[in-house]
Amino acid sequence: MKALLLVAHGSRRQASNDEVRELVERMRGQTTDYGLIDTAFLELAEPSIPDGLRNALRAGASEIVVLPYFLSAGRHVAEDIPEEVDKVRGETQVPIRVAPYLGAADEVSGLLLQQALRA
Amino acid sequence: MKALLLVAHGSRRQASNDEVRELVERMRGQTTDYGLIDTAFLELAEPSIPDGLRNALRAGASEIVVLPYFLSAGRHVAEDIPEEVDKVRGETQVPIRVAPYLGAADEVSGLLLQQALRA
Repeated sequence: MKALLLVAHGSRRQASNDEVRELVERMRGQTTDYGLIDTAFLELAEPSIPDGLRNALRAGASEIVVLPYFLSAGRHVAEDIPEEVDKVRGETQVPIRVAPYLGAADEVSGLLLQQALRA
Repeated sequence: MKALLLVAHGSRRQASNDEVRELVERMRGQTTDYGLIDTAFLELAEPSIPDGLRNALRAGASEIVVLPYFLSAGRHVAEDIPEEVDKVRGETQVPIRVAPYLGAADEVSGLLLQQALRA
């Protein structure tokens, strides 16, 4: 079973965290590629990245993709997320891969131009 | 002349600010709808939002769209960006509209699923 973990920064503002959870709900409705699609947060909200990964393992994941919901390749993406993932890598044989962060997607420029039309 | 101003948070890390500027370069190559597409930053980088708007006005904009390059509807999107925009609204008759922030776009969920395949 393939699992997908969308990793957001996390906010003190619950509405922002809920916005990420709703996004994951939408993703679930758009694909059958994953047996589990879930949210984890780098800080300020639950579950943490290690807890999110352990939940996926307990649910029977045989492969996990971590997807950073971030716009730029700052310290969080380059160092903090890999460090959190590494905490669980030692606990399992299941492969855990980290996808490029959202802002690295070529499609973002076109999507922004679309969004500008909604002003 | 329509102008588009992509507004990012801004970072102490210059590479992150340059990443936004490169994104704007890509947007310029993808549309002829705007006579000017430029970047502005809420904080920590230049130009500021008022300066970005004034640059667009000086360049002859007859209509400006401000596009928040943000993932969630936090204080920055709900309060800070509108406040910065209001500073310039009093200086011109040119309409300045604020588009929905990137994270509000329905297409984000599908784009994330695409990005996950690149892990």
